[in-house]
Amino acid sequence: MDRVPILKLGDILIVSIQIDLQDQSVLALQEDLSEQVVATGARGVIIDISAVEIVDSFIGRMLATIAGISRMLDAETVVVGMRPAVAITLVELGLSLGGVRTALNLEKGVALLNHIENVQIAAVTR
Amino acid sequence: MDRVPILKLGDILIVSIQIDLQDQSVLALQEDLSEQVVATGARGVIIDISAVEIVDSFIGRMLATIAGISRMLDAETVVVGMRPAVAITLVELGLSLGGVRTALNLEKGVALLNHIENVQIAAVTR
Repeated sequence: MDRVPILKLGDILIVSIQIDLQDQSVLALQEDLSEQVVATGARGVIIDISAVEIVDSFIGRMLATIAGISRMLDAETVVVGMRPAVAITLVELGLSLGGVRTALNLEKGVALLNHIENVQIAAVTR
Repeated sequence: MDRVPILKLGDILIVSIQIDLQDQSVLALQEDLSEQVVATGARGVIIDISAVEIVDSFIGRMLATIAGISRMLDAETVVVGMRPAVAITLVELGLSLGGVRTALNLEKGVALLNHIENVQIAAVTR
C-alpha cells in the first residue's frame, strides 16, 4: 500500500497523507495527482497533512512541487491540517512553502477554493 | 503515524484507510471516530478503502463494528472505494458486511448520506 489514494468530491481532489513518503511514493503521487487533475478537470487540490508529525525539506519541496504542477494544469492547491509543531519546524527550517496556500482544516480549504474560483469567474466576466 | 486522520466536511466525517491496520490502531480509530461523531454532531461517516488491497475477516469486522458504533451515535456509515478484488474476497469469505452501506466512490457516498438524511427528515415531518 504505497500509493496514496486520491478522493474526488465535485471539482476538488482530496489527498490525505498518512504514510512516510519515500522518493518513489512521492513521484507516484505527483504522477497520479496530475493525471487525475487532467482526467477529472478538477479546479482544486486539497492535501491533508494532519497525520504528518515530522516535516523536513523533502516534504516541503514535495508540497511546493505538487502545487506547481497543479497550477500548470489550472488547479489551485491548498494544504490543510498542519500541526502547530510542523508549522514551527517549517519556519525554523526557513521553508516558507512559497506558492502553497494553507487552511486550518478540510472545510476551510474547500471554502478557500470556492472563494478563489468565484474571484476568477468574476475577473473573467468583468 | 499509526493514527488514521479523520476529516470533517459539513456534517460528514471522512476516513481514508491507507495503512495496514493492526489491533491497536483499529481500537484507536474506533475511539477517535466515536469521539469525533459526538463532538461534531456528524450525521454520516464515510470510510474510503480504495487503498486497501487485501481484506480479511478482521477488516470486515472492523467496518461492521464502526458502522454499529456510529449508528448508536445517530450517524450512518458508508464504505466507499472498494476494489473489485476486495468485493470478490469478501463474498468468498462469506462476509456480507451486514449493516454497512457501500457506494462506488466518495461523491456517491456523500449523495447517499444526503439522501438518507432527507428521507429521515421527511419521515419525521410527515
